[in-house]
Amino acid sequence: MAELSAATREALVKVGTSTLTGVLSRRGLKNMFMQRVWPIRPDQPRMVGPAYTMRFIPAREDKAGARPGGPLQRQAMEECPPGHVLVVDARGDARAASAGDLYCGRLKARGCAGIVTDGGLRDTDGIAKTGLPGYHQRPSSPPSPIAHHPLELEVPIGCGGVAVYPGDIIVGDGDGVVVIPADIVDAVAEEALASTLYDEFAEEEVARGRSLVGLFPVVGDDAKRDFEAWKKARGLA
Amino acid sequence: MAELSAATREALVKVGTSTLTGVLSRRGLKNMFMQRVWPIRPDQPRMVGPAYTMRFIPAREDKAGARPGGPLQRQAMEECPPGHVLVVDARGDARAASAGDLYCGRLKARGCAGIVTDGGLRDTDGIAKTGLPGYHQRPSSPPSPIAHHPLELEVPIGCGGVAVYPGDIIVGDGDGVVVIPADIVDAVAEEALASTLYDEFAEEEVARGRSLVGLFPVVGDDAKRDFEAWKKARGLA
Amino acid sequence: MAELSAATREALVKVGTSTLTGVLSRRGLKNMFMQRVWPIRPDQPRMVGPAYTMRFIPAREDKAGARPGGPLQRQAMEECPPGHVLVVDARGDARAASAGDLYCGRLKARGCAGIVTDGGLRDTDGIAKTGLPGYHQRPSSPPSPIAHHPLELEVPIGCGGVAVYPGDIIVGDGDGVVVIPADIVDAVAEEALASTLYDEFAEEEVARGRSLVGLFPVVGDDAKRDFEAWKKARGLA
Amino acid sequence: MAELSAATREALVKVGTSTLTGVLSRRGLKNMFMQRVWPIRPDQPRMVGPAYTMRFIPAREDKAGARPGGPLQRQAMEECPPGHVLVVDARGDARAASAGDLYCGRLKARGCAGIVTDGGLRDTDGIAKTGLPGYHQRPSSPPSPIAHHPLELEVPIGCGGVAVYPGDIIVGDGDGVVVIPADIVDAVAEEALASTLYDEFAEEEVARGRSLVGLFPVVGDDAKRDFEAWKKARGLA
Amino acid sequence: MAELSAATREALVKVGTSTLTGVLSRRGLKNMFMQRVWPIRPDQPRMVGPAYTMRFIPAREDKAGARPGGPLQRQAMEECPPGHVLVVDARGDARAASAGDLYCGRLKARGCAGIVTDGGLRDTDGIAKTGLPGYHQRPSSPPSPIAHHPLELEVPIGCGGVAVYPGDIIVGDGDGVVVIPADIVDAVAEEALASTLYDEFAEEEVARGRSLVGLFPVVGDDAKRDFEAWKKARGLA
Amino acid sequence: MAELSAATREALVKVGTSTLTGVLSRRGLKNMFMQRVWPIRPDQPRMVGPAYTMRFIPAREDKAGARPGGPLQRQAMEECPPGHVLVVDARGDARAASAGDLYCGRLKARGCAGIVTDGGLRDTDGIAKTGLPGYHQRPSSPPSPIAHHPLELEVPIGCGGVAVYPGDIIVGDGDGVVVIPADIVDAVAEEALASTLYDEFAEEEVARGRSLVGLFPVVGDDAKRDFEAWKKARGLA
Repeated sequence: MAELSAATREALVKVGTSTLTGVLSRRGLKNMFMQRVWPIRPDQPRMVGPAYTMRFIPAREDKAGARPGGPLQRQAMEECPPGHVLVVDARGDARAASAGDLYCGRLKARGCAGIVTDGGLRDTDGIAKTGLPGYHQRPSSPPSPIAHHPLELEVPIGCGGVAVYPGDIIVGDGDGVVVIPADIVDAVAEEALASTLYDEFAEEEVARGRSLVGLFPVVGDDAKRDFEAWKKARGLA
Repeated sequence: MAELSAATREALVKVGTSTLTGVLSRRGLKNMFMQRVWPIRPDQPRMVGPAYTMRFIPAREDKAGARPGGPLQRQAMEECPPGHVLVVDARGDARAASAGDLYCGRLKARGCAGIVTDGGLRDTDGIAKTGLPGYHQRPSSPPSPIAHHPLELEVPIGCGGVAVYPGDIIVGDGDGVVVIPADIVDAVAEEALASTLYDEFAEEEVARGRSLVGLFPVVGDDAKRDFEAWKKARGLA
Repeated sequence: MAELSAATREALVKVGTSTLTGVLSRRGLKNMFMQRVWPIRPDQPRMVGPAYTMRFIPAREDKAGARPGGPLQRQAMEECPPGHVLVVDARGDARAASAGDLYCGRLKARGCAGIVTDGGLRDTDGIAKTGLPGYHQRPSSPPSPIAHHPLELEVPIGCGGVAVYPGDIIVGDGDGVVVIPADIVDAVAEEALASTLYDEFAEEEVARGRSLVGLFPVVGDDAKRDFEAWKKARGLA
Repeated sequence: MAELSAATREALVKVGTSTLTGVLSRRGLKNMFMQRVWPIRPDQPRMVGPAYTMRFIPAREDKAGARPGGPLQRQAMEECPPGHVLVVDARGDARAASAGDLYCGRLKARGCAGIVTDGGLRDTDGIAKTGLPGYHQRPSSPPSPIAHHPLELEVPIGCGGVAVYPGDIIVGDGDGVVVIPADIVDAVAEEALASTLYDEFAEEEVARGRSLVGLFPVVGDDAKRDFEAWKKARGLA
Repeated sequence: MAELSAATREALVKVGTSTLTGVLSRRGLKNMFMQRVWPIRPDQPRMVGPAYTMRFIPAREDKAGARPGGPLQRQAMEECPPGHVLVVDARGDARAASAGDLYCGRLKARGCAGIVTDGGLRDTDGIAKTGLPGYHQRPSSPPSPIAHHPLELEVPIGCGGVAVYPGDIIVGDGDGVVVIPADIVDAVAEEALASTLYDEFAEEEVARGRSLVGLFPVVGDDAKRDFEAWKKARGLA
Repeated sequence: MAELSAATREALVKVGTSTLTGVLSRRGLKNMFMQRVWPIRPDQPRMVGPAYTMRFIPAREDKAGARPGGPLQRQAMEECPPGHVLVVDARGDARAASAGDLYCGRLKARGCAGIVTDGGLRDTDGIAKTGLPGYHQRPSSPPSPIAHHPLELEVPIGCGGVAVYPGDIIVGDGDGVVVIPADIVDAVAEEALASTLYDEFAEEEVARGRSLVGLFPVVGDDAKRDFEAWKKARGLA
């Protein structure tokens, strides 16, 4: 089970995916934002947690029989560790659902942090009511077996065009979902938090009419000095 | 004109498209949910009614002249029976509109139940104000004739990848639109209503921490017995 | 710098893109509505202003070095004239952002009217907070250089499948974005305003049960006469 | 049954779809070339004939039963008049076949001129052996009922994004398929034949190094005069 | 290692994918033909063999280091058993290659039966020269690591929208690729061979002018009797 | 006018796009192969030359008038320098043609090296007859102005998702088109030629049964030593 320190989790809740993709890009990681994966509701809470993965392959009629122990999806809902995000590789296929409200309700009840699929979620009203943050390509009411066969848990997958390894840290906001390798997450979170603070300063400056030159990207000493003063005035430095 | 009993209509208003696609799938109907067809507003009322259909083909300059009796679309708005849903085959082409706010206002005033197209609707603000539930692929402001020629009414069509026959029952919720054959709609509605009640029970159980094992899918007698007790406590059984 | 009279701007704020595409279509301009370009927030203010354009081409590693004078995007934010709309040709590629909240904040602070891209915007929460109307294909958190190289400003471009020349008038509402040639904008706005007034009249008539026949499209004298009376009753004629 | 004079047919066999779309465009018909519809073999003979149409809608399990009189597709193969082209509206869906080699063999044996679908054809080797020109989106081996329900014959349809009315003249070459309204086909063919002759002249001139200026598009008298001489030298004028 | 009897292999080489999808569909297997997967050359030999699978996930810069034992793709080329078909899950992503001519040459030299990917192959001229049948979405010259990370061998995968389990029988012809479950392949091959013989008979009949009625689909005794006579005349019955 | 040494041109004619993308990738250039751009004929000669560019934007009815000096496309055909490749940015839109056989014939007559568009070419039979190598997305018969407005020549463009600057070296083979920055083309060509020689050696080795281990990728001294011997035996070292 992947670890995520309280400090890093707290930091990640405060930073946006745009800041995180910027930090990751500077470290050479260019493809960490899922394409065509959206929040099911614009106002859902932010999502942070290590990835617990599930892999679907296309359904096939001769493999559709009941599985001893019950459906693999249900096992995922029962075993995804608290604080984790269930990430589903649905091959970008939203013709049938990846999960629905009862499954998501169980994740929520067990303390999981969210669910992400590059396919579709069903009964998004019901999911929204559970309070679990959900991300998908589009709503999809048809039951999962029409298109999907759940094959295995906790293997590396692709989701929204991004590689996701179990334990990667998943962060979602109103714009979408970013993936952070676990071994650099503390540093990434710290850098992103600092960057977010600077952005807050810069936004205020810009709002009151300051030019972007020197301010963004930062060039010269003026912006740095003003930022230090801004932090001091707020007891942040 | 298709019939829909008051009891069935009342039941269908209470059940979600995810429940209905589940019931239909168990009856062997696997492709009844329209793909890439969304509500124009997330909070619009649910939509239930028999289908009244209109078929578009691609526009052609030599067929663009005025039609005696006025535009066929207008005829659709004047003749779609009260309680019915106008379903438009726009070949998934949203480059120009399938209908706009005046047409939808007329449907509403005449007591129709909604409009569905796999193309686009124009002036969605105006449509939303009429109160008519609308479903489409995406907003599309350009006037219809730029891409579409309305050919005929009340023939079988495709919409969102699903076959729609006049009189099929159309149900829409926040996730999208499902099609139900009229000859099984009573049984489907009844089964869906029962299923919805069980889901309500199961959601409560899950929310208070019960495992999905035995509960969903139902296996063994425990969940059934608890469900009966739950219904009894609410005066439902 | 393009001119837009106060009267025309005032008129355009009141008319929808569906009315404008109708007026333009009657003048033979059939392809003026951007495809797959949406408002970042459903409730953002309408957007009206002359186009100031920026052209992206695909990024290439050997052209990625710093530019003397700073990033071209920043120059766009500093030089887009007040009242104008920055329109970005991102080749429909939303894998990386076209702009973010600081850039949009600067546009807002400088009195610009909005931003439009057929790619993606990043930190849409931040952009929404600035109050600048924004239109894009979908949210895109990754930094711009991952996919885009900003090449030049104020050249004719394509955006959402529509040609945009610097100085064209750009209008956005809840359904999307329309482009109006500057040399006909006054006449188009006037015609659209008159058309909007008639639509308002017709909507009321339809809401109280009047048939569309004769009313829309207008045929015969009845509707015209009633419209004149309706206007007189409101002190509009 | 549509008529096509021997002279016009003979002319159309000699002219390419690029010449025909040019002639049609000058007459205001801008959307007559099917998009994403290709010849099944690069070297198949050209195809000319009036359209006989078949319309598919999406398959549905409750409509899949046998049809009295046999499959509608077979009826199409038996009734498509000699000299005609069978044009199939498959909604651009190539997941299952629109027709196969036996059906196409029957069309060939009955003297039909070709088959066109915006879906897929199966057993293209077998079709090629029959000698019938075939056009489709891509090969598709699965049997038709997996995705398609053949609904009706001889109605207006869309195919490859183009409206096709029964009796329209269909012409196919190595690049694709163009649709010509029957009421102008004689004039279109005549103009296209003349245009083709000029192209032949111009190609020779260009091949020997002549500039395009004045030659294409034709401006001034030089090219016209040389063309007259060229025709005279070949006994064509 | 999967088994495939000589008789079944011999039968499968003679039957087309259209016949096989027909047989599979009658057994309830509706989704066994890969979508958008084509032969690299129209005239390559048919391909038959059990599947040996390789799974790609999206590339990620922090996982790009050298692998002890060399690239996993190379291991696939060295270990895919003779007679088998290497089937690659490239998530339908053809931006970078799944394999090239040296890898395919090694497969050929080791007696493998072919290669299939739903991504792209590079140096298709070189692959064609090796004589190994290859199937892909489109040519793709860029080296594999630009988009793909080879994760594992011999697991169930999706390819062209079809589930492929190690040991499934893969058959390719000029139209594409079909997947046959190993446990029914003998019966499927036998049925397909009989069906192919009937098709050959029917094609001859059709070519000489016989109607499809009664012949295809077979209804009544006439066609059966004639088929028996046809076979007898050829010493086949 | 860009320079390309005879030696480098000669080398580039001998190497494939797969080798070149490999060399470019090792130098950090990951996105130099055009996506969805194919040769118009499988057997056309290879294409090598510096890029001369043309940029299209979407057509607009109010910009459609005749241009003093004639169409810009024609100017491109008359001014593209001998030995150069005309590369057209058609925004990936193949609904109308980028060029046809007369234009391509003029390029050929003037000694140009080829034409590339990410849209479509018309009259591909005619183009093939001129002998000019052509690359496009798919055949497109409709005349260019239906979708395209030619805006300017010799500016940086995007084509097939790749940035192309005037003077970049363009190489096309049976798989597609690669772009090489002019300032490194000599070194790239040299490295690619050496790599191609090694590939030739390795292909022979593989064909006679040698394992890929050690050979590809090269590890240890055995393969190097054998390669030297192989070259010596052919008088190449």
